[in-house]
Amino acid sequence: MDRRELIEQITDEIWKRISAAPEGLSCSCHAVRTEECPNGIRIIVQCGADRIGLPLGSPSPGSDLASLIDHTLLKPEATRPQVTQLCREALEYGFAAVCVNPYWVRTCAALVKGSPVVVASVVGFPLGATTTDAKVYEARRALFDGAREIDMVINVGALKSHEDEAVRKDMEEVVRACHEADSQTKVILETALLTQEEKVRACVLAREAGADFVKTSTGFGPGGATAEDVALMRSVVGPGMGIKAAGGIKDYETAKRLVEAGATRIGASAGVRIVQQQAAPAATPY
Amino acid sequence: MDRRELIEQITDEIWKRISAAPEGLSCSCHAVRTEECPNGIRIIVQCGADRIGLPLGSPSPGSDLASLIDHTLLKPEATRPQVTQLCREALEYGFAAVCVNPYWVRTCAALVKGSPVVVASVVGFPLGATTTDAKVYEARRALFDGAREIDMVINVGALKSHEDEAVRKDMEEVVRACHEADSQTKVILETALLTQEEKVRACVLAREAGADFVKTSTGFGPGGATAEDVALMRSVVGPGMGIKAAGGIKDYETAKRLVEAGATRIGASAGVRIVQQQAAPAATPY
Repeated sequence: MDRRELIEQITDEIWKRISAAPEGLSCSCHAVRTEECPNGIRIIVQCGADRIGLPLGSPSPGSDLASLIDHTLLKPEATRPQVTQLCREALEYGFAAVCVNPYWVRTCAALVKGSPVVVASVVGFPLGATTTDAKVYEARRALFDGAREIDMVINVGALKSHEDEAVRKDMEEVVRACHEADSQTKVILETALLTQEEKVRACVLAREAGADFVKTSTGFGPGGATAEDVALMRSVVGPGMGIKAAGGIKDYETAKRLVEAGATRIGASAGVRIVQQQAAPAATPY
Repeated sequence: MDRRELIEQITDEIWKRISAAPEGLSCSCHAVRTEECPNGIRIIVQCGADRIGLPLGSPSPGSDLASLIDHTLLKPEATRPQVTQLCREALEYGFAAVCVNPYWVRTCAALVKGSPVVVASVVGFPLGATTTDAKVYEARRALFDGAREIDMVINVGALKSHEDEAVRKDMEEVVRACHEADSQTKVILETALLTQEEKVRACVLAREAGADFVKTSTGFGPGGATAEDVALMRSVVGPGMGIKAAGGIKDYETAKRLVEAGATRIGASAGVRIVQQQAAPAATPY
């Protein structure tokens, strides 16, 4: 039995027990019985099972998107007040994470401490063409500073040069560093730079490397997330991995379409607008 | 006397002796008497004085541009054959350096070994928002792999947040790592993201940090090098530092204008076209 199967079996067992509990367990996101939590399987994660690298399940399209959103601010010119504001919004709306550049991790970790919001940071970002040990160092430093999720960019040039062993090892080493720190790795493919064959090969390598998520895009490349790419990625990695759609997701309809295609996490700087549109779609002019 | 004054005095002394030598010294770039070398002051660097962090002087506008060009390939999807081709062209045309992402430094160092072409690599690139120790680690790894010039991106967000001490320390630590390895640091300001006041402040901090060059742009930002920015940077850093203009330099006329404005190095992926236009301007259609 491999690691992935083990995780799935443990997850099933936990899920069965939660569902069977007479009064249920309260979820930490809405303080309601787990069966009633609009976030569905996410409550397991918030009950502590993320410690075993549990991927999130697909929510039903109508459910609350906020807890699937990585509230993101990665532009290099972001200032301290903007980063602080990002954290405030994440706490207010109940986003899954704030996603920031490494310099800001320590600041954000202090701001969201004690809440369900975690800090995600980026490694080898956005080009992915640094050395493996530099990526590992960057990841460990971000984890040390309080990050619990690391979004790393794959080595696109090595993938295109058919240096698959280098690409896999690059992911593996970062995944190991993250798992040692009870944290998750999202592997960014930068799909807009890849052929269909390369997207498939990258997904297979990411699964082999034990990554927790595959992620479509950095938001700095020539294109962002598409439903077609998410569906392709889901078909390759199977149900056992998370998929993060990111890049150019500016409204609720787009986010919803990507979740329907198989995404379990949405990376966006427009998180507030997305959840406001979800809450009152008619009031939002398109 | 500070370090910079010391360097200038030593440089003056070496220059005087070279000029006074009856037969002159042969430059390594063209194997001609130093006085006849079209690269002018660059011969000092190639005679070994780069060991003391010597900035390059401004060449006269009509002189050979090739030896001022960092032949650059930083796109994430660059493949091994493209990187190899870059090195071949750098050797053929006598460019100052090849400038590549860290993953490719070892490959390039092997290919240009024994020639005057050096390997430049990038750190904290292109966002600059990583931690200082991650930048230092990245720099040391690139130096270990054979880089002799490190182009690091400043922490733009910290600069805009008026965290000047963090910005300076960020540069200082990378500069120290480079100087320990007899190598140079170019500090990238990403001018297109900065106000005039921020450009000036960044130049002052770079000078204080002991950087060898200030550099305009990453080539991944919203704008590239302008003659106005180069002139402003020159006016702030004085004659003692190198200035690298980079980003969007696609032809000889642009490169020439930037050198006239005060640039002592040109970063471009269009290096071959630039030198071909210099050699035969009439034959090149615009």
